[in-house]
Amino acid sequence: MISESLLIGKIRRFLPAAQGIRKGIGDDAAVLPLDKKHYLLLTVDTIVDGVDFRLTETSPELVGRKALAINLSDIAAMGGEPCHALVALGIPAGLSYAWIRRFYSGMRKLGKEFNTVVVGGDLSRSKQFFASVTVAGKVKKDKLVLRDGAKTGDSILVTGRLGGSLAGRHLTFTPRVREAAYLVKHFKINAMMDLSDGLMRDLDVLMRESKKGARVFMDSIPVSQTALRGSGQGKTNPLKSALCDGEDFELLFTASRADAKNILAGRDGLLGTPVRCIGKATAGQGIMFQKNEKDREKFKLPWKGYEHF
Amino acid sequence: MISESLLIGKIRRFLPAAQGIRKGIGDDAAVLPLDKKHYLLLTVDTIVDGVDFRLTETSPELVGRKALAINLSDIAAMGGEPCHALVALGIPAGLSYAWIRRFYSGMRKLGKEFNTVVVGGDLSRSKQFFASVTVAGKVKKDKLVLRDGAKTGDSILVTGRLGGSLAGRHLTFTPRVREAAYLVKHFKINAMMDLSDGLMRDLDVLMRESKKGARVFMDSIPVSQTALRGSGQGKTNPLKSALCDGEDFELLFTASRADAKNILAGRDGLLGTPVRCIGKATAGQGIMFQKNEKDREKFKLPWKGYEHF
Repeated sequence: MISESLLIGKIRRFLPAAQGIRKGIGDDAAVLPLDKKHYLLLTVDTIVDGVDFRLTETSPELVGRKALAINLSDIAAMGGEPCHALVALGIPAGLSYAWIRRFYSGMRKLGKEFNTVVVGGDLSRSKQFFASVTVAGKVKKDKLVLRDGAKTGDSILVTGRLGGSLAGRHLTFTPRVREAAYLVKHFKINAMMDLSDGLMRDLDVLMRESKKGARVFMDSIPVSQTALRGSGQGKTNPLKSALCDGEDFELLFTASRADAKNILAGRDGLLGTPVRCIGKATAGQGIMFQKNEKDREKFKLPWKGYEHF
Repeated sequence: MISESLLIGKIRRFLPAAQGIRKGIGDDAAVLPLDKKHYLLLTVDTIVDGVDFRLTETSPELVGRKALAINLSDIAAMGGEPCHALVALGIPAGLSYAWIRRFYSGMRKLGKEFNTVVVGGDLSRSKQFFASVTVAGKVKKDKLVLRDGAKTGDSILVTGRLGGSLAGRHLTFTPRVREAAYLVKHFKINAMMDLSDGLMRDLDVLMRESKKGARVFMDSIPVSQTALRGSGQGKTNPLKSALCDGEDFELLFTASRADAKNILAGRDGLLGTPVRCIGKATAGQGIMFQKNEKDREKFKLPWKGYEHF
């Protein structure tokens, strides 16, 4: 069995980059020409029954909500503003219209909150329910943030608290669209992505794209209440949950130390959302850990991120 | 079991139209703001193993080709030019990387022919293989063709030959992008859509959207060789195959009689593709048939189109 990251890597090498495209495969969204001042952002994400939620256990509103939210999170991670959604559904024979209506209802409600309208879609018969949602958004050209822009010495920051999302938050999280918009408006964000496969794995991706390494301060990792309670995938090890659990859908980003200081200076975090500096970008390669910012002893961790594929 | 058309109708009523959007749900593609001279077109279509093809029988190149081609056909039906594609795959555990690579290879080859580049995507685990492809395109504002523009007295035209597509052509058809571009460049096309659910059903959709009826000339229906051989869904009735079989992916469109005459005057059809006048739009409602253009006796046909959902 081939892993998703390996497969995406292979596909990316196989599909050539095209002319006139600011960014294709390999970021949270594709970055395409729109008008003089803006890029068009396009992203697609799919949720499948039994993999990303359980049809028999989850309320249809929350399924519809999640199908859209994960895409809004991708647009946010580019510094962009979502606008339109297309919804492709695979519908098993037994599914009622009432269920489908409630699915759209949950999606519409979240869409309203983030100015995103369903403008089209497609219905197919399938054995297993799936929802493949495409979101189009836009971003001012000078506000675009990619994964590959981290600079040596940058502070690495993360919003929210990590770990244990699969216990419930993955269905109810608020995509960080407003926080990202605030960040790119007021600061120079050098690199950004959303956390979907766990901090360990995603930070490695961000740093590889930027051709940098990272030093992570263990005592700065924001651990969620769920992880602290032992309800994360790391069970009795909340830190492991925070580092390795998937589907946090928080923002992971880097900025200069000066900008980071100003971002962290807000009394209420980032528009009410907690924000933490968890480490710094280094000239080397790989992710190393140290107990805290002052401690010099560095070590590796054997844990891997979440493999949702 | 609820039919697809009924379900789409319900969803369409349930999801409100949004401001600033030229056309949302209910056409071949959504029509969104792009720049001063162009609209952005967005469409998504999904193919599912066992429904739209068979993984065990179909070459992966043709599966990839079809997944893109059905979307290019949608962009063509708006008078547009496709540009970018996002590919969301549901991959069952046993599927090899070699298969997936061949799938992308088929898609890439067709994309090259129509200047459409894969710029992103998503991979999920699923029991049943599916490919949900989104295509973004653009259209000059004054060249956009919707479904709702047919005028009373318009000639109704169709490209190619109809029926029997499921015997093979649904995997190998050429999306009518070039033909549509030629049509909107040289003529005033009042309404257009691509044929996916059979002429009977799709013509009914086109005329309802335009709030018109239609008179169809039976002897003008272009029947494919496959249907004539009895290999269509209508079996011994080739005309039934031509009228009811799905997945023709030809263009169905209307234009004034004068424009239609000029379109039909081309010796080699439309850029080498056959084109026929099959009827005319009427002020009334519903689709009525007559033996030929001259014959006055009108009748209904009890056949229904293809229900692929």
